[in-house]
Amino acid sequence: MSAVGTIHGVGLGPGDPDLMSVRAHRLLTEAKHVAFFRKAGRKGQARQIVEGLLPDTVVEFPMEYPVTTEIPLSDPRYNEMLSEFYEEVTQHLITLAQRGDDVVVLCEGDPFFYGSFMHIYERVRNVVPVKVVPAITGMSGAWTATAAPITWGDDVLTVLTGTLPEDTLTDYIARTDALVVMKIGTNFEKVISALKSAGRYGDAWIVQYATMPNQNVLKLSEMTEDVTPYFSIIVVHGQGRRP
Amino acid sequence: MSAVGTIHGVGLGPGDPDLMSVRAHRLLTEAKHVAFFRKAGRKGQARQIVEGLLPDTVVEFPMEYPVTTEIPLSDPRYNEMLSEFYEEVTQHLITLAQRGDDVVVLCEGDPFFYGSFMHIYERVRNVVPVKVVPAITGMSGAWTATAAPITWGDDVLTVLTGTLPEDTLTDYIARTDALVVMKIGTNFEKVISALKSAGRYGDAWIVQYATMPNQNVLKLSEMTEDVTPYFSIIVVHGQGRRP
Repeated sequence: MSAVGTIHGVGLGPGDPDLMSVRAHRLLTEAKHVAFFRKAGRKGQARQIVEGLLPDTVVEFPMEYPVTTEIPLSDPRYNEMLSEFYEEVTQHLITLAQRGDDVVVLCEGDPFFYGSFMHIYERVRNVVPVKVVPAITGMSGAWTATAAPITWGDDVLTVLTGTLPEDTLTDYIARTDALVVMKIGTNFEKVISALKSAGRYGDAWIVQYATMPNQNVLKLSEMTEDVTPYFSIIVVHGQGRRP
Repeated sequence: MSAVGTIHGVGLGPGDPDLMSVRAHRLLTEAKHVAFFRKAGRKGQARQIVEGLLPDTVVEFPMEYPVTTEIPLSDPRYNEMLSEFYEEVTQHLITLAQRGDDVVVLCEGDPFFYGSFMHIYERVRNVVPVKVVPAITGMSGAWTATAAPITWGDDVLTVLTGTLPEDTLTDYIARTDALVVMKIGTNFEKVISALKSAGRYGDAWIVQYATMPNQNVLKLSEMTEDVTPYFSIIVVHGQGRRP
């Protein structure tokens, strides 16, 4: 064992454990410490994905968000509370690494693509060794679930988050060939409205729980339930050049 | 064995065999038939990735492109020749499936993301069973290689191909937070020029052979060689909200 351990940010992919990488699988089955984000009172989505894969001897470190949707993003307390939280959990991970232990941080999707791991990464990168294992993104899981290619030929793909203002969403949606919208949740009605304004509502699909046992794929226009969709990604396929 | 076999479009990821999915690895190590695209006279990048993983008994079907960059995309013969080629190789895959054999088609990156497999997929989907295994995209491999997150908070990510006209490239580049440019090759000078016009040249990175042994990561502005970069992806990182 080296003097200082490594923090591994390990992407788990979209949800099906069979879709994690060979490297991720190996790191998990040999892990001494695993850390993962979750909401208080929940098991945690990342932890759920690796159920049954971790050694019996693994030491688990759940990192529970102090705040999620209760405080608006615009409130300065939101960033302050999150920043304090990231500092605190990061300090624990650094302590483990400095005493010589490797730590696997479980990451849904790909760690560097809208992931929470980056907030740890930026705080540890100059302190202890850190490595990142890329993964299949949730959006790849979603477009594969629609059983149609997302981009052809010269198609432009735009990835948006539902947290953007409606007119910004509309503007980008109107200009792209292929589209992915992440972070739907409570922004669902706003995203629908932007898709309609941009003339792409009829082409849109919604994928809930992509690659998971409860996966649900629907044309957005055929979605009748008046509910907030969780773990959802909206997809509009490009229609580019095809021989 | 079922009466009819399945055609599996299996994404291999960005290049490092350790980054393919557990499912892809299993399908490869149990494969009876593998098919893969390549240029005439080359081993083929996809075939190279799986070197050493296939059973000794596997039957290989190289699908050699009749044309790549010799004829301009705008020439109608380009599409005609490619279309004939796809029809011909697809017919062979269908014949294998109809006699009861499964076939694994090797795909670089993610099959539904600018992949050649889609041209097979669209031709077989109503004829024989076909399944797609998503994978880590080349762009995930590239941004991970830069050791910095691609998107934060509300960042907009735009994915472009270097084959687009320069003014189109400039227009999209000027409006996005995070950027990926694929299909660089002979479009390199045009992409550089568009990045400069859009004021993002200084922020751009170029990743050659991401995740492969000869991986090379550079600030674009520090690239001195006057050569056409192969297997290259250009990345500009978003700078969004971070606690």
